[in-house]
Amino acid sequence: MAVNALSQTPREIRELVRVGRWEARTTAGVAPGYVQANLVILPKAQAFDFLLFCQRNPKPCPLIEVMEAGVAEPAITAPGADIRTDLPRYRVFRDGALVKETDDILEEWRDDLVTFLLGCSFTFEAALLDAGISLRHIEQEKNVSMYVTTLATRPAGQFAGPTVVSMRPIPQEKVVRAVQITSRFPDVHGAPVHIGDPQRIGIRDLSKPDYGDIVELEKGEVPVFWACGVTPQAVAMHSKPPLMITHAPGNMFVTDQRDQELAVL
Amino acid sequence: MAVNALSQTPREIRELVRVGRWEARTTAGVAPGYVQANLVILPKAQAFDFLLFCQRNPKPCPLIEVMEAGVAEPAITAPGADIRTDLPRYRVFRDGALVKETDDILEEWRDDLVTFLLGCSFTFEAALLDAGISLRHIEQEKNVSMYVTTLATRPAGQFAGPTVVSMRPIPQEKVVRAVQITSRFPDVHGAPVHIGDPQRIGIRDLSKPDYGDIVELEKGEVPVFWACGVTPQAVAMHSKPPLMITHAPGNMFVTDQRDQELAVL
Repeated sequence: MAVNALSQTPREIRELVRVGRWEARTTAGVAPGYVQANLVILPKAQAFDFLLFCQRNPKPCPLIEVMEAGVAEPAITAPGADIRTDLPRYRVFRDGALVKETDDILEEWRDDLVTFLLGCSFTFEAALLDAGISLRHIEQEKNVSMYVTTLATRPAGQFAGPTVVSMRPIPQEKVVRAVQITSRFPDVHGAPVHIGDPQRIGIRDLSKPDYGDIVELEKGEVPVFWACGVTPQAVAMHSKPPLMITHAPGNMFVTDQRDQELAVL
Repeated sequence: MAVNALSQTPREIRELVRVGRWEARTTAGVAPGYVQANLVILPKAQAFDFLLFCQRNPKPCPLIEVMEAGVAEPAITAPGADIRTDLPRYRVFRDGALVKETDDILEEWRDDLVTFLLGCSFTFEAALLDAGISLRHIEQEKNVSMYVTTLATRPAGQFAGPTVVSMRPIPQEKVVRAVQITSRFPDVHGAPVHIGDPQRIGIRDLSKPDYGDIVELEKGEVPVFWACGVTPQAVAMHSKPPLMITHAPGNMFVTDQRDQELAVL
C-alpha cells in the first residue's frame, strides 16, 4: 500500500492514481469511512436496459451514481474526478470477451458511453467491523467467497441471469446484529439474501466458490449470504455488449461520499 | 365511493375500473394497506433521462416499477393488470400542454412508450395514522397543500426543476415520531425534506399553496414538508416531451404490493 494511504483523502488517492503514482494493488482498506464503487461502463444503446436492470435488482446492483452519456466527471459523488483515469486498473470487454487490462481508458472513451457506479460491500463490512463482528476473509487477507446461486434476478430488456452472492461466516449469536447493521445500507447490497443452508439457494459445496477464495466455516458459525457486485458485471457480460468497461477486481473508484451518508436510519 | 370499496382487493378494483364500472372520483382510501402509484408514461426517447432523473432524486421520484418500452403489464407490482385501462382517469399531454382527460389510453398507446410507476404519499400517511398522528387534510376531506420550493432537484439530461413539497401540520411533540415513521418508507417519499420555517425553502406564504387546498396550521403545530409526487410530473412537463401521459389527480394505480413490503426496517 502507498505510504500514508490510510490518511489520504479520496481526492489525494484519485490524484495519485491519475498521474500513475499509486502503487498499491488494491483499494481495499484505503480512505476508511468513504464509499468505494464498482464501475460498469456501457454504450448508450444498452444503458436504458441496464439502468432498468439495476432499478429492479437493487440488492445486487445498488446504484450510487449514473452519469449522462459522454460525461466523465461523477459530479455527485466525486466532483472534479475523471472516471477515465482515476481508477487504478480497468478491464475492457468487447462482445463479452476480456480484451485488455489497462491503467486508463482515455483511448476507449467515446461520447456515447454511460458510466454506472455501484455500491460495494466495503461500506457494510466497515459497519460490521465497527460493531465487533470480525470478518474472516479480511483477517486472513483473502478475497471473500462468491457463488453463483439459483436465485434469479429480475430480467430487464436484454439483461438477465442468476444472482451472485458473497458468503461471510458469522457466529450464531451475532447473526441478528449482522442483519440489522447491513439492513441500514441498502445502497451497498443491504440485508442478506439468505442465512444458513447453502443448498436452498443452489450452492452445492461451500468449499468450491465460483469466484474469490475459500473461507472456512468454523464451529458455531452460520454462513450468511449477501448479494454481490459481481452480479451486474456477470449479467452484462452474458448479454455480450459490443463494449463494456469495468474496474479490475479490487481496484474500485474511491468517492468523496461518506459511508454514513448511505445509511437509511 | 363504490359499494364495498374498502373490502375490495386491488385486483377487483382494477377490474371494475377496466370495464367502466368504477364510480368513485378518487382512489384515496380504497384497498387500505396496498401501495398506490403515480403514473408517468413517456416515449423511449425521453425514458433514459427520466429514469436517471428519478434515480438522482429518489425523494420526490421514488420508483415502484418501470416497464420496458411497449409493455402494458406491471409484472412486478400487479401481474395481470393493464396500465392502459386500469386507472380510473388519465391525462394526456402533448408538447407540455394538456390535450385530453380520458378513461383509457388504448388509442394513445404505442410500442415505444415506457411506463413509470412512482410511490405516492398514501402509504406513509397510512403509517402516520396507524401511529396516532392525525392528518388534518384527511379529516377535513381536502387535498394536501403543495408548494413549489427553492430546493432544486438534481438535473438529468433534459429534465430539471424545483422540488414540489406537500405540507402536513404535525403537533410539536409528534414531529420526531413522524420523521421516524416516514423514514421507514424511502420508496414513497421517505423522511421529510424540511421541518419548520417555510421561508427557508422559499415558501413565502403557507396560506397560498401552489397546488391543492389550504390546510390551516393550529397552535402548537409545526409545518412538516415532504417531497411530493407532483415534482416529476412538473419537471417532465417543463421539458415539453412530445407525448406524456399521467394519472389524473387522485386517480392512482392500485397495485398488489402491500405498504409494509416497502418498509426498509
